[in-house]
Amino acid sequence: MTGVTKRVAVLGATGYSGIELLRLLYSHSGVAVVAVSADRHAGETVGRAIPPLAGLYDLTCQRIDQLYDHDFDVVFLALPHEQSTSVCHRFLRPGAVVIDLSGAFRIKDPAVFKRWYGFEMERALTDVAVYGMPELKRDAIRRARLIANPGCYPTGATIPVAPFLKRRVIANTGIVIDAKSGVTGAGRSPSQELHFSELNEGLRAYKPAEHRHVPEIEQELSGFSSGTRVTFVPHLVPINRGVFTTIYAAVQDRNMDQSGLEAVLTEAYHDEPFVRVVRYPGLPNVNAVRGSNYIDIAVRYDEQNSTAIIFSAIDNLVKGASGQAIQNMNIALGFEEKQGLVFPPVFP
Amino acid sequence: MTGVTKRVAVLGATGYSGIELLRLLYSHSGVAVVAVSADRHAGETVGRAIPPLAGLYDLTCQRIDQLYDHDFDVVFLALPHEQSTSVCHRFLRPGAVVIDLSGAFRIKDPAVFKRWYGFEMERALTDVAVYGMPELKRDAIRRARLIANPGCYPTGATIPVAPFLKRRVIANTGIVIDAKSGVTGAGRSPSQELHFSELNEGLRAYKPAEHRHVPEIEQELSGFSSGTRVTFVPHLVPINRGVFTTIYAAVQDRNMDQSGLEAVLTEAYHDEPFVRVVRYPGLPNVNAVRGSNYIDIAVRYDEQNSTAIIFSAIDNLVKGASGQAIQNMNIALGFEEKQGLVFPPVFP
Amino acid sequence: MTGVTKRVAVLGATGYSGIELLRLLYSHSGVAVVAVSADRHAGETVGRAIPPLAGLYDLTCQRIDQLYDHDFDVVFLALPHEQSTSVCHRFLRPGAVVIDLSGAFRIKDPAVFKRWYGFEMERALTDVAVYGMPELKRDAIRRARLIANPGCYPTGATIPVAPFLKRRVIANTGIVIDAKSGVTGAGRSPSQELHFSELNEGLRAYKPAEHRHVPEIEQELSGFSSGTRVTFVPHLVPINRGVFTTIYAAVQDRNMDQSGLEAVLTEAYHDEPFVRVVRYPGLPNVNAVRGSNYIDIAVRYDEQNSTAIIFSAIDNLVKGASGQAIQNMNIALGFEEKQGLVFPPVFP
Amino acid sequence: MTGVTKRVAVLGATGYSGIELLRLLYSHSGVAVVAVSADRHAGETVGRAIPPLAGLYDLTCQRIDQLYDHDFDVVFLALPHEQSTSVCHRFLRPGAVVIDLSGAFRIKDPAVFKRWYGFEMERALTDVAVYGMPELKRDAIRRARLIANPGCYPTGATIPVAPFLKRRVIANTGIVIDAKSGVTGAGRSPSQELHFSELNEGLRAYKPAEHRHVPEIEQELSGFSSGTRVTFVPHLVPINRGVFTTIYAAVQDRNMDQSGLEAVLTEAYHDEPFVRVVRYPGLPNVNAVRGSNYIDIAVRYDEQNSTAIIFSAIDNLVKGASGQAIQNMNIALGFEEKQGLVFPPVFP
Repeated sequence: MTGVTKRVAVLGATGYSGIELLRLLYSHSGVAVVAVSADRHAGETVGRAIPPLAGLYDLTCQRIDQLYDHDFDVVFLALPHEQSTSVCHRFLRPGAVVIDLSGAFRIKDPAVFKRWYGFEMERALTDVAVYGMPELKRDAIRRARLIANPGCYPTGATIPVAPFLKRRVIANTGIVIDAKSGVTGAGRSPSQELHFSELNEGLRAYKPAEHRHVPEIEQELSGFSSGTRVTFVPHLVPINRGVFTTIYAAVQDRNMDQSGLEAVLTEAYHDEPFVRVVRYPGLPNVNAVRGSNYIDIAVRYDEQNSTAIIFSAIDNLVKGASGQAIQNMNIALGFEEKQGLVFPPVFP
Repeated sequence: MTGVTKRVAVLGATGYSGIELLRLLYSHSGVAVVAVSADRHAGETVGRAIPPLAGLYDLTCQRIDQLYDHDFDVVFLALPHEQSTSVCHRFLRPGAVVIDLSGAFRIKDPAVFKRWYGFEMERALTDVAVYGMPELKRDAIRRARLIANPGCYPTGATIPVAPFLKRRVIANTGIVIDAKSGVTGAGRSPSQELHFSELNEGLRAYKPAEHRHVPEIEQELSGFSSGTRVTFVPHLVPINRGVFTTIYAAVQDRNMDQSGLEAVLTEAYHDEPFVRVVRYPGLPNVNAVRGSNYIDIAVRYDEQNSTAIIFSAIDNLVKGASGQAIQNMNIALGFEEKQGLVFPPVFP
Repeated sequence: MTGVTKRVAVLGATGYSGIELLRLLYSHSGVAVVAVSADRHAGETVGRAIPPLAGLYDLTCQRIDQLYDHDFDVVFLALPHEQSTSVCHRFLRPGAVVIDLSGAFRIKDPAVFKRWYGFEMERALTDVAVYGMPELKRDAIRRARLIANPGCYPTGATIPVAPFLKRRVIANTGIVIDAKSGVTGAGRSPSQELHFSELNEGLRAYKPAEHRHVPEIEQELSGFSSGTRVTFVPHLVPINRGVFTTIYAAVQDRNMDQSGLEAVLTEAYHDEPFVRVVRYPGLPNVNAVRGSNYIDIAVRYDEQNSTAIIFSAIDNLVKGASGQAIQNMNIALGFEEKQGLVFPPVFP
Repeated sequence: MTGVTKRVAVLGATGYSGIELLRLLYSHSGVAVVAVSADRHAGETVGRAIPPLAGLYDLTCQRIDQLYDHDFDVVFLALPHEQSTSVCHRFLRPGAVVIDLSGAFRIKDPAVFKRWYGFEMERALTDVAVYGMPELKRDAIRRARLIANPGCYPTGATIPVAPFLKRRVIANTGIVIDAKSGVTGAGRSPSQELHFSELNEGLRAYKPAEHRHVPEIEQELSGFSSGTRVTFVPHLVPINRGVFTTIYAAVQDRNMDQSGLEAVLTEAYHDEPFVRVVRYPGLPNVNAVRGSNYIDIAVRYDEQNSTAIIFSAIDNLVKGASGQAIQNMNIALGFEEKQGLVFPPVFP
């Protein structure tokens, strides 16, 4: 990087991902947030629109169309899928990097996209978009101008499973991914389902084998083992932040044992700044990564059933969204990858 | 039953299962709780030892040894495993039915028991004990004098899976049981792990493939398909009550589809008073059974992976413990099975 | 009462108070719910509209206008204030008792009502309505045809304070009422403010000295000491059920001490079936009344400041709404006052 | 400050205040934590003793006595009161600043201390200790060698009330302080009372007018208006972090109104980096300060009762403990007061 402060815009600033971007970017010494959009709060100061940020940003929210065709070094789109699709080209100007936190540009196959998202993708943009999972695609991200930031569930599932597929330790079919998510993952728009008393002290699955993160996970894991198929069931847990993922896969390497499985993870990730392998007998917990960009992972061998049980814990708003987006920004802009992202989790 | 009120003792009354027994038995017109034990609260009134029950019971807590060899019609043991093992014979007197809520008498194989519980079972008692899952063992319960009340996880797993195994719809190996439990399932004794702020806003797995409910589940499911094997991982969720279980199994019947799978459940359980099959597109939620003896179950067919995804939700203190214990009592004593147990869940 | 089962209608059945009425009425042996209204769920079975009640009610939700002018023995209005105001006369037919759970008929002064509710009261109905707080107005309730069921905050504040005012133990000005409520008190309609993640792990006051329960509390307490004035501040706490109220009042009787204050409560309420005085050093807790019709109360003397600190805990959906409504029904119809309402709280 | 990195020790590192010190000090560029004590974890790495900190500190926990008489620039005591009392002199060496987060040195009057803490204070040390509330005692802190870091409740109460007393806007008697705290304020030691299911969905007062923060609040407020007396009642709310305080005081200035009251706060604190005055109609919320060193304050005028209602929200572990301790360190060592402490709250 040069010593020049990069100019950043955050679009959709009053959603949870947008607020989290503002929280994290505040402490990043290489960038300055110079514009934020929030259509429903246009004209309000950031501190008024987002009370936790009072006194920290001297900015006023604008309508997104007021920012069209302006020059920024980095533009974060924290918008609904459809809106990202339609406005992205307005910000993808020469010299700019656009990082989209929606699902608009993640799925490469137009038919698959249409089936799961219900509208047509923006093909030209999707073709150039790079899937922004640094641990697995760092080189491509370095050259990217449009980054499709991964979904929270795909982040929690892909990182811990990829090394096992790559080394052919597990079978690439019959993989079960049972994920448990906090409620911020569902966004900030009010609905009957997300009303406090409907969720609090409740516990349920939703969209079993029907969630749009299924094709995203299968697309990315197939990069390591062609034709990978997963059964994915998300659950909703009454906490604010965190995705805990439990993955079950058939071990096809007969010589594997607990330490061998653990070695697959440590060897794959020992140099990664945000992947922490929790060693036996420890296990991840979302409360050990809260507020941080870490993904904590672990594995157990269920010898009786020749099954690997793989675990991960992330904060869905950080490693599962805004933190990973900043990690991508760091890579694409040539900052040190860790810049602004190395700090302890908030416990408890 | 005769018109005579049955005399009931609740031992271990100040644990969560004990308190729940007192809550539920209060409204049962065929019985009267005439004695309660709680060693640490001996000499205190029930209302003082358990403030929510103030004004409802005119009884004083006793030491358990003060109740040895007394005559009761029914004795509920809500005690630690070891204590149930050692005191059970003191209450298993002629004419009495003993219902044990611990794991002391559930596992039939002495070696398996020793391995998972760490001490020797009481063989003679285990031999006569009946596993008290009414939906699957009603006839045996009718004749039982000692009933081993099932664990909460085995209840949530066995009831929805059994019909699929019985009909050979699913394979009996490679079954994955991913269970999520509220915290009352861990009991009432304080510990660092169960301290409020350690759990609240946290989410984690524990004892993966190492929980002592594994052999209990395998023993019972093997009654429907010999040699059934499961990979079982429990998780701890920061809510008070409820176990939500998600089960993944390979469908081996090629002609199955969503409605066929659902029919397996409805045909198996349409006459059961406490099993509710949630029809597509609905799914169970622990907050729809809270405080009640219902187990809500559902199934989804993941056609791409030929996998049945089976769901259940129970209140671990009711259907997973004290409610099921009373259901067992009703059967063993000749009451109507539903007596004292049919009332709406507490929502929210 | 006669042995005849009374016919009950619950209007607004899918709100939290409506659901709670259905939960509690289910176990009341003297009545049968024969009709329920829920405009948005018209045509759906109760079990489909309210999944926790699946299998318990063989009824279909209707539009409220389909029930106009039908004959019921008891009609519960669990409706918005404005709707109660406009439809009440449709159900107040000869022989019927109408119990309104909204604020439509609680305030006697038309100007005060207009100021706090923003619309005109239905004067003729308000004139005949009896404020349904059994502990303080039992005789009037017995003769009532229209009962204005108290608000949850006024219930938690009025019952414990009234005896002190009546006996002139405390001053009737400068009374501070600091109330903390669970979220079901805010109803079931989704809004940004009641979105799960906005409330969870949050804690705040709202409408300080501006809540419409202020005039209700002052009106009722002034019945015991004319001109009583209170400073009332409600707070929102991320739990489902419960109102905990802490009241501060100047002790004007110089001879008072802790036991004297406690005696005021025990003497006032020793015969009340739903008031439990928690004796020193105990204190109420909402988790000791959850799901029940109890109000637990206590008092402490802060001698240094000559201040009485008065506490209460209720379940806002039971004693604060539907349970008290049924208690009123019992009185008005001549049932035993406790009928269908005496059962243990759900702990934890 | 000089450019030299200051050497810091954190004693009692595995309690919640200790962990929070390590979290916050990590990002402070002027200091380095060089030693941590945790008797029960002696010999373990910090990352093993405190899993959220894995990979962030290359330190091993030691027994506290292993650190006696070593040279540090700053020593934080996050220990029980008694232990702080007995070990403090071991660390109060020439050139060192000791910041004690317990109550050992806050109360100046030996008799008052004895009455509320139950043991004898260390008089010589208490005499030199400075009460570390920067907004009110900045100059004294600058010269302090031993700083008594305020309690969380006194922080939430004193800061918003002091300006009103100083200006004689409110009476100094009859002040009611109703505080609601998250559970981390009660520490990390397991107990029946702090067991998850005992607190979750519960709500209660504790130690009404009997909490040891009463004399601390009265001592400090009396510095602004001699003889100030308060009725203080703390409550326990099932959240992790946060203290919300509601204070009621008689307004004795007849010319006051809402804007006049608000002006008292803005004039007193407009230059304070960590005090945010929330303007009408806004109100503080603990979720707007979580994880941060802010105290958000507001006031409302209840004109009918001539009462000022004063509000504050803090994160008890930050402004109520470890953050304020670091703010004190910054002042005492000559760092910029904000250093390492200006970052956005974690919302939600």
